[in-house]
This record gives sequence, structure tokens and C-alpha cells, in this order.
Amino acid sequence: MHLTTSYPDGLYIEGIALTDIATRFGTPCYVYSRAALAAAYSGYRNALDAQGFGNRALICYAVKANASLAILNLFANLGAGFDIVSGGELARVLAAGGKAEKIVFSGVGKSRAEMRAALAAGIHCFNVESASELTQLNAVAGELGTCAPISLRVNPNVDPKTHPYISTGLKDAKFGIAMDAAFALYQHAASLPHLAVKGIDCHIGSQLLDPAPAAEAMDKVLALADQLAVAHIPLTHIDVGGGMGIQYQPDKPAPTVADYLAPILAKLSDRHEQLVLEPGRSLVGNAGLLLTQVMVLKPGEEKNFAIVDAAMNDLMRPALYDAFHEIVKVGAGDTPQSFESDRRECRAVSGKPSWRTAKHDEQCWEIVGPVCESGDFLGHDRALALAEGDLLAILSAGAYGMAMASNYNTRPRAAEVMVDGDQVHLIRRREEVAELFALESVLPAG
Amino acid sequence: MHLTTSYPDGLYIEGIALTDIATRFGTPCYVYSRAALAAAYSGYRNALDAQGFGNRALICYAVKANASLAILNLFANLGAGFDIVSGGELARVLAAGGKAEKIVFSGVGKSRAEMRAALAAGIHCFNVESASELTQLNAVAGELGTCAPISLRVNPNVDPKTHPYISTGLKDAKFGIAMDAAFALYQHAASLPHLAVKGIDCHIGSQLLDPAPAAEAMDKVLALADQLAVAHIPLTHIDVGGGMGIQYQPDKPAPTVADYLAPILAKLSDRHEQLVLEPGRSLVGNAGLLLTQVMVLKPGEEKNFAIVDAAMNDLMRPALYDAFHEIVKVGAGDTPQSFESDRRECRAVSGKPSWRTAKHDEQCWEIVGPVCESGDFLGHDRALALAEGDLLAILSAGAYGMAMASNYNTRPRAAEVMVDGDQVHLIRRREEVAELFALESVLPAG
Repeated sequence: MHLTTSYPDGLYIEGIALTDIATRFGTPCYVYSRAALAAAYSGYRNALDAQGFGNRALICYAVKANASLAILNLFANLGAGFDIVSGGELARVLAAGGKAEKIVFSGVGKSRAEMRAALAAGIHCFNVESASELTQLNAVAGELGTCAPISLRVNPNVDPKTHPYISTGLKDAKFGIAMDAAFALYQHAASLPHLAVKGIDCHIGSQLLDPAPAAEAMDKVLALADQLAVAHIPLTHIDVGGGMGIQYQPDKPAPTVADYLAPILAKLSDRHEQLVLEPGRSLVGNAGLLLTQVMVLKPGEEKNFAIVDAAMNDLMRPALYDAFHEIVKVGAGDTPQSFESDRRECRAVSGKPSWRTAKHDEQCWEIVGPVCESGDFLGHDRALALAEGDLLAILSAGAYGMAMASNYNTRPRAAEVMVDGDQVHLIRRREEVAELFALESVLPAG
Repeated sequence: MHLTTSYPDGLYIEGIALTDIATRFGTPCYVYSRAALAAAYSGYRNALDAQGFGNRALICYAVKANASLAILNLFANLGAGFDIVSGGELARVLAAGGKAEKIVFSGVGKSRAEMRAALAAGIHCFNVESASELTQLNAVAGELGTCAPISLRVNPNVDPKTHPYISTGLKDAKFGIAMDAAFALYQHAASLPHLAVKGIDCHIGSQLLDPAPAAEAMDKVLALADQLAVAHIPLTHIDVGGGMGIQYQPDKPAPTVADYLAPILAKLSDRHEQLVLEPGRSLVGNAGLLLTQVMVLKPGEEKNFAIVDAAMNDLMRPALYDAFHEIVKVGAGDTPQSFESDRRECRAVSGKPSWRTAKHDEQCWEIVGPVCESGDFLGHDRALALAEGDLLAILSAGAYGMAMASNYNTRPRAAEVMVDGDQVHLIRRREEVAELFALESVLPAG
């Protein structure tokens, strides 16, 4: 997102100083930029329009990346569809004003109750991931006297070379249907009375920076679609999945959406099917940051620790994936300096941000939270000039941040705000401690 | 915990069939045994009494392992104190009937609001982890016109040889005060007007199965205590921390509490100070299991997947620490077989549990959840005879299970029940989907 500095208030998001957000809403606090979210969506829309897919492409935002009602509502207003993975996400999309007919339902373990809810809502398509799911979905649709629209998620066995936890398209993954079993399963699906075969789906992983594996997968998907057409099982849509990565580190740039999509779209340009995309991280990741305050500085013989008021319960990615998030000082009160960060993907990249001054000497810090666990770190070896009370912004925290937050150590989950020009809106208030055990009770005495 | 089988209902906890719990409360569901919790507490109490520490030992349950009000209430009724790490945990302990004067407050990042709340409640002691915290606590206590009881958590630089994320006593950890800096910091603390030096604290890690590192650390702690006494800073308690491990795997037994504590207590037997212990996992870990149902079986060319209705959002330990949890079939409807599992630490260990029958052939399964991430697994390569609809019990899930649960993929957190003889009590009801976004709102239109 576009960050600017202005003396004496430090970093701004759009027209709002982060110091003001900290004062009004406290820390830790997730901050999103409406402009950055809208820009990321437009990036996809424009890339598709430019390649002639304007009328036949549906962008289904992958809700699991960030399920905030405000973000879903924003994307719904921009015309997006949604890729959901649970009944909970279905409820969120509908509550946020999303259209059921633009929803695709992915995931390896849909319960019958979730299938019923999605059928009742009238979703666009179920992305079916196993033979058993096909059987169960046919039965549920039959009970409701309806017909379930389906795609099969096929597994192209392509290695996306990402973190093992977010690589999903290999043969030994739990996801999808093996390529060589898919044709027979399509035939079986076509024979079931309460299923309507609509499309094909493919998703090979997450945080992908090179489109080549997805393009390679697309070749296999299209060959299967053609084989199905010959067998009188024509498909009306091709779902190319999601997984496009973002820039987290200054030295690891991500491609533009247009560049990433180009080799994939090239394979689809002379076809007739509707195109479905399922971007998640690339729509929200760099449109959000986690604002936190330095509580304690603890210089040490071997390492210096800056203990901040955000922790692994707020942002799990460093502990879970050893993920890197850029961390910058909000810098209020420092000498005025201009800070340019209008990079591609709307992201602030610090490197050596120019608002650093000589007021405090820069040192190497471990940025850690208060949770009682060595895995509770947010960043290693960060060169920053810190004082207690300083505000820090943990960048690129819009995806898989709040979505994975927990109450570990009985910590209330953070507030979330969205900046829109010179306005800031509280889109989720901070939890209160008493709410964390409101559902609990002790055993009766005796 | 003690599990028994009885045809046709499969596994029982105390007097309750797990099948009944699934029917009444649904799955996924955390199930705790009151008897197993009480037995684990008695294990500590008896070991201390046997060594003559009956009158001068305070067992402070480490709340972070499982903060359930019902569990806290049970331990409070048994006379336990509590080791807390946040203001949220303080509120939980007080709500559950715990006594403030038996609370120790650990953690590297206590906020001033948390310090104030703990001082107002009148806790036993703050375990202070940095020079900065000492300064802040002195200031807060001064503002309240009171005096804060403190220990310093010292860092003995002993390697407990456990998972890096749960090893906390090494020199490069964020925890504690370096041994060679501790004496001077005690002198400083003694000079501050609003602090009262009470004790010394030490905690070297988690899931420790060998007491030697803790005993080695104790030598260093006691040497410092003696040095402080000579300098007219006498201590009234020695906090030996927690960290005792439990048995997760059949082939990795844990010592008894008595055996684990013996070498540590031996060093303390001829001293006068009160002894504080901070056990967490060893009080609750093997007193709880996660009950789940098989949704989809997906046999594959390379691996077979059993997709169950519990996931990484319910139990994070496999994804986060690559932790092993034994998984057994609840086995309802199978041929009656006796199942003996009255092992030490109240734990059911399956190996080749005898209730397995030839009804289904045993196969090797990946036990995974419905979350859309390859890291969402609960167990690898488990030999089980499975059918869809089967119930499974994920054992040793009482510690760091529900405590780390999240709403990832908009999944409501599981119900929690506690079995007490032939009664089962709902101690936390399952979340409802609408509750998950009740705190949220969309941007105003326009």
C-alpha cells in the first residue's frame, strides 16, 4: 500500500497517520487500505480485460486469506465472486452482500450440512475433490430435489517449488483428483442424477512467483477438457485456481498480475469456456499491515530483543512457515524525511527507509511478542533504531494474518480498521477478555 | 486417562462412552477426564509430600497449557496456585475461583495495565524478565502506592534438548535474565522503593523428559540465592519452573512426576525457602483428547487420506511443531475386545490396540483435516481400519490444544466437555458461525 511520511506524525496510509490509528484504536491493530484493496482487484480486472477476457472471467476472491466482512463487502461491490472452503465462509460472504451465484466451494472435507447450505443458497459450483465427495453431494442434492453444479479439482502433479505446507498440487497431497483418474470420475459424475458437470478446477499451491508451473498445469487441464468434450461431457468453465504470490521482501519482487497471468491466459484465449480465477493473497496481502508498539527493549549479550505487543497469536506466519514480514518504524517525532514507496503491488518496502534518523542508533533486533514460547517471533535480525513506546508496522500482513489469529495465552484478538481516504473505520473491534470465556462454565459443585 | 472398551459402544472415558459424547455434543469435541486431571495433580502433591515439601510447596498450574474455566476451577478446588502470562489469564483464574495470593505472573511482555490489574488483585509474585520490566513495574506500583513482590527469572543457559520453539533457557532466548547479570539486577531491584524482592525463578523449556538439565539449572539458581543472602537480599521462595514432559508416543515413555522431581528436590531438601512449581502440560496433556469423525476416505496411489472433521485450527501442534499425537479408533460396533490402557500418566497408548478387528482391513492413512493447506494434518502414516463415519480419538490433546485453537477457514471452535464418573458436562459450547463475525462491520455505503 502507499505509505508516506509527514513530520511530525510519521507514516501515513492514504490520508491517515498510523500514530492516530494507534491512539484511537490501540495496538496491536490490523490496518487495511481501501485504495490498495481496490487497486489489487483492478489489477486483475484490467489484466483480464486487456487480454479480451472481460466478458467471460469471474474473479472469485479466496476468502480464507482474509474473511473480514468489510473486505468481502468491498470486493462484492466491485463485482467479485468468492472462493469459499467452509459453511462459515459461505455465511460470511452472504452476510457481506456477496452473490451466491458467484461462489465456488472448494475444500477436501465439506460436511453434508455445508453442502445443503450451499445448495440452498444456489452457488455457482462445487469444486469436488474426491470420489466420496461426489457420492455424498449427489445424495444431498437428491434429498433436496435439486442438482448440484460441479467441477472436479484435478491434481496435475506439478511442483510449484513453494513452502511444503502451501504446495497443494503434488501427487502425494490431500487435494484434488489424480489426473489419470479424472476422466473416469467425470464419466461417473455425468451419470449421477443429481449432479451437473460444469467445469474443471486446478490449484497447485500458494505464494507462487513463477507462472510456469501453473501454465504447465493448464496444458494438462485443457487436454482433459478437450477429451471430455469428445466424450460428450462439455465444460462451461475452466477454473485456473489462485496462488499468485506477493512481494514480502525487498530483494524478492513478485511479477505484476498481468505478467503472471499472461502465459496462462495465452493458453485460454481461443477457447469458449468461462474463466474462473481464485486469487487470495495477491488481493489482500500487501493491502494490510499489523500496527504494534514496542513494550520492552532487552539488549543482550548474544541478541537484542524488542518485545512488542503483537505476538504469534496475532500473526502466525513467522512461527508456522518461518515467513518473512518487513518491519518498519512508524517514525513519529523523527526528523522529517520523504519516504517513497509507491512500488508495484502497492507495497511499502523499506530496505533502508529514509525516515530513519540518527536520533537513536540503529541496532540489530529480534522482534518478538509477549507469548511464552520461543516460536513467538515476528522478525529476526532487523536493523532498527528503537525506543520503548515506538510504533512499528509489520507489512504485508493482509493475508493469513487475522485469518489465523487465536486467543493463545488468553490474548484478545486485535482490532481491525480500514482506511478510506481521510477516514478510518473500525471494521472489527478488539475482543474483550471476558468475551474469551463467555461460552465456558465450571463443573457443578459437589 | 483411563480408556476402556465395552461392546457395542467402543471406548469409554470413566463411565461415559465416547460415542455418546459425539451424539450429544457433536464433533470435533475436546473431552477431558476429571479423574485424570485430579490424578495428575495428586501425582505432584504426593511426590512433594513424600519428600517433606508438603508445607512449603506451592503448585502453580501454568494456565497457558489449557485455560478452561472448568479446569482452573478444578485445580483451584484442589488447592493449586496458578502461573499466568497475561491479564487475560489473570481474569480467567479469578473468574474460576482461583486465589490471587497463589498467582505468579510470568512473561516477557507485561503491559502496564496488566501490572496494575495484578497488583490490584494482590498476586503472590511477578516473575520479572528484564531490567526494563523492573523499572516499569516499580513505576506502576509507585503510582498505586503499593509495593510489587518480585522474583527475577534467571536464564541458566542450559540446553534442554527439546524442540527449538519450546526451549527457553538458552542464552539467546528472549526469556530471563543472564546469570551473570542477575546479581547486580537483584541489588538494583532491592534499591527500588516500590519493589519487594521475594524469590528467584527459572524455566528452561517445555516437554522435558530428563530432569538433569533442570537439576543443573537448580545448582546455578541456588548458588545465586546463597550469594544474595550474603548480600542481605534473602529470598523467601525458589520457583523451579515447569516444563515436565508427557508421554505422547508408545515408544517414548515419560518419567513419573516423583522420578522427574527427585534430583531437583534433593537439592532443595535442606533449605528453608518456599518451593514454587509451574507445571502445565504434565497436569493436563494426557487428561484430554480430541474426538473427531471421519468425513471422507480418499485412497490414493501414493498415500491414503482420511479427512476428519477436526483440523489444524482445532489442534495446531502437528502443523506447528510437527508433534506426534496417538490416534485411536473409538471402535463402536466392532467385535468386543478388552482394551487395557491403565498406563502410567493415565494415558491410553495404542500400539496395536486389541479392539481392532478384521472387519475392515488395516491400511496406512494420513489423518488430515478439511483446512485448505497441506500443513493441515493430524497424523502421518497411521495403521487403522477406517470407514467413513468412524469416530477417532486424538490422544494427549489436553495441553496446547484448545489453548491454541483459531477460527482459520471460518471454522467455529470445538465444544469442550468434561467427564466426571458417569456424568458429562459441557464446559464450553461449540461456537456458532454468526458469532465469528459478530464484532465486524462493513464500510458505510457511498
